[in-house]
Amino acid sequence: MTGSKENQLTAKTQTSASILDLAERAKRAANAIAVMSNDERNEALLAIAGEIATHEREILAANQRDLSNAATLLSQGKLTQALVDRLKLDSNKLSSVVAGIRQIAKMPDPIGKIDLARELDTDLELQRITCPIGLIGVIFEARPDALPQIASLCLKSANGIILKGGAEAEHSNRVLFDCLKQAAVRAGVPGDALVLLESRADVSELLKADRFVDLIIPRGSSALVRHIQDNTHIPVLGHAEGVCHVYVDASADLMKAVSIICDAKAQYPSACNAAETILIHKSLASRLMPKLSKSLAEAGVSMRCDAQALTMVGDNPSALATEADWSTEYGDLIVSIKIVEDIDQAIEHINHYGSGHTDAMIGEDTNAFDKFFAQVNSAGVYLNASTRFADGFRYGFGAEVGISTSKQHPRGPVGIEGLVTYKYKLIGNGHVVADYAGADAKQFTHRDLKLQPKQEDY
Amino acid sequence: MTGSKENQLTAKTQTSASILDLAERAKRAANAIAVMSNDERNEALLAIAGEIATHEREILAANQRDLSNAATLLSQGKLTQALVDRLKLDSNKLSSVVAGIRQIAKMPDPIGKIDLARELDTDLELQRITCPIGLIGVIFEARPDALPQIASLCLKSANGIILKGGAEAEHSNRVLFDCLKQAAVRAGVPGDALVLLESRADVSELLKADRFVDLIIPRGSSALVRHIQDNTHIPVLGHAEGVCHVYVDASADLMKAVSIICDAKAQYPSACNAAETILIHKSLASRLMPKLSKSLAEAGVSMRCDAQALTMVGDNPSALATEADWSTEYGDLIVSIKIVEDIDQAIEHINHYGSGHTDAMIGEDTNAFDKFFAQVNSAGVYLNASTRFADGFRYGFGAEVGISTSKQHPRGPVGIEGLVTYKYKLIGNGHVVADYAGADAKQFTHRDLKLQPKQEDY
Repeated sequence: MTGSKENQLTAKTQTSASILDLAERAKRAANAIAVMSNDERNEALLAIAGEIATHEREILAANQRDLSNAATLLSQGKLTQALVDRLKLDSNKLSSVVAGIRQIAKMPDPIGKIDLARELDTDLELQRITCPIGLIGVIFEARPDALPQIASLCLKSANGIILKGGAEAEHSNRVLFDCLKQAAVRAGVPGDALVLLESRADVSELLKADRFVDLIIPRGSSALVRHIQDNTHIPVLGHAEGVCHVYVDASADLMKAVSIICDAKAQYPSACNAAETILIHKSLASRLMPKLSKSLAEAGVSMRCDAQALTMVGDNPSALATEADWSTEYGDLIVSIKIVEDIDQAIEHINHYGSGHTDAMIGEDTNAFDKFFAQVNSAGVYLNASTRFADGFRYGFGAEVGISTSKQHPRGPVGIEGLVTYKYKLIGNGHVVADYAGADAKQFTHRDLKLQPKQEDY
Repeated sequence: MTGSKENQLTAKTQTSASILDLAERAKRAANAIAVMSNDERNEALLAIAGEIATHEREILAANQRDLSNAATLLSQGKLTQALVDRLKLDSNKLSSVVAGIRQIAKMPDPIGKIDLARELDTDLELQRITCPIGLIGVIFEARPDALPQIASLCLKSANGIILKGGAEAEHSNRVLFDCLKQAAVRAGVPGDALVLLESRADVSELLKADRFVDLIIPRGSSALVRHIQDNTHIPVLGHAEGVCHVYVDASADLMKAVSIICDAKAQYPSACNAAETILIHKSLASRLMPKLSKSLAEAGVSMRCDAQALTMVGDNPSALATEADWSTEYGDLIVSIKIVEDIDQAIEHINHYGSGHTDAMIGEDTNAFDKFFAQVNSAGVYLNASTRFADGFRYGFGAEVGISTSKQHPRGPVGIEGLVTYKYKLIGNGHVVADYAGADAKQFTHRDLKLQPKQEDY
């Protein structure tokens, strides 16, 4: 007994040491990416795209193995059909992965952008310059096409990456990762900077590697994100929930309201940017509700209404909303509806029950929207547009690693720009602080210098 | 016994509820600051400056009470002289507090700056716009002049603030806070948005108020910062340690090296941006060490050297460095010295033992510095300048709330800019995502629009 326990402990310690060791080597290798030029990183990206394209048959065969395992689990009720759908790769999906990587290679270099340049005194110049974050851990579920996409965003931004995919996609992930790593290494990327973890136990060790891992990006269910947030000291980028609202102001155009609400709820209900609660100004509730209720019913959406709205639902199968409904992310064809006294009550409701993700107002009164924009504490605050637009591709970022509801940078859909930070560079000529202190203190000039013209947004 | 225990529990629950309640009200009131104009916020700042100026006598009298309590504690060995020095206010210090607040009022509005403007499609326009963070908790030790300064930075950036000062400065803080709050409220700031906590127990309740408090800024010892980081889910801005390095490259000018090292170590040794470790390229160690050792000795600095450097110390009282020395923030007139083989070893040492705060290279070889800048993972990476320049005032930010070693925004000295975040604004005209999906998908235009010319840096 004692012997076996000791062995277990030893085994555990070894695993733990080896993940830490992997992370330490990855961190050091990531530092070598930091001195690769943009052209060198782009060449690696193009090599990866080519490697994936030429290995399509192997990738799809590996995916087929994952799919047949998943079919068994599905028949046993251990997986959902939605998860199986996300798992499936085909020729079209792979082509768009390859096209996506080539697009990332064409984007401007996110590293080395100077966004502050100031003379502090003669010959003493301060710059703030973007640089990689360092080593990024990505923990994702199901979708194997996420692996090359996220890894490419990290490589473009000169970061090292430790990936852990879902067990369901094990074979697909391994072949995709092999393509990625082999091509990257041939193009000069240090191999240690790209790591694939395969066991669930590795994740808990990774979450302890705060000395080496600078950022964790979880992509998956709320439960996964919350588990990670609660079990690491490493900063976590992402969001646990997306409780998005559409507020229909007294000034709203009813046709826009109906069309936007149906899109925001029903176009893809399991997305985090789908709307969960509709807040309707009392002055137009009786005119809007019949139309809205009918359109939602046609889209298969059932409603959870407050007492007043419940009297206006017509044929739509509806129930009285409970307190819990207002903070629920249904992720399904269900929406909660509340009638509010005024815009202030709508703002208050959103800030109280919302998740700081994306909230829209429908209305023609721009003063009302100015107030709504100033007071709704969310990463996206929209006028007359569907909350479903909250997405890195739609924002023109090329791709996203996730959507952040944090109020510390970055916030909202996070593209390459969210994978860099900055360093202050100070160039002097022997400058010491003592000269700027005391009775005869020299004065700083604090003169802003002209920034290099460089394409700023991508 | 049972009764008394029950009473304690009730009392505790009440306190806890009331701090949460205060925080909830402060959050709501902070939201009302978000709709005040820059002029209105500036008027409040000028009113605060005036109020402090006219109450100088009361403030100094309150400070006198704190100082006499501190003198007692000093004589009992419960406080250090350094702490008593920081506690002391005088007419000069107050004048500079007042001048500082007036300067903050003159700075450009940090709120509402548009840093991305993009047409996604006809009539569908995306902007990224700076906005307040929300409600900020500041926990600081000793220096009462920090209170009006930090509160002013928060007000300028339209954030609510909950302050908790050190017990030693209790009377000074209370009078300063009263001036601040009375003037702000007269100028239209909602009073609930400015809160002063006075008991240590309140701090632990505040750290639990993650539903309402968006950011905690601790200003004080490493122990305070680490305690806070370990006991809250709220993001913490700041740094626990400042282990700053000066690396003397093979290409260094020896005079610049000696002068910068003495300034970085001795000009104010207890500052977080003071240097703790000097790394010297082996090719010039034997020429540099005698001069450096002599100058450091004259400045009262003793050395902890590696075996090789220890043979070159001359008369300077020195000891052999232990492993622990390389990660120690002395905060005192002590410096550790190591001779390195090359720049790679220096970079590796800094990334391994450093704290990501500020590190300088002395050298004339700009290629070497390019490498040093790219690979040293710190918020400030300097060439030929003292690490002591890492400071919001010296960077031209007017003032700072702290220095961040985080790699998530903000990093380095944090002025007003670090107290804002951004929201994405999307203005459509009934736009729905369904039109951009599927077979006949509309294409996004993703056309970048011209940004408003607005002063960007401050």
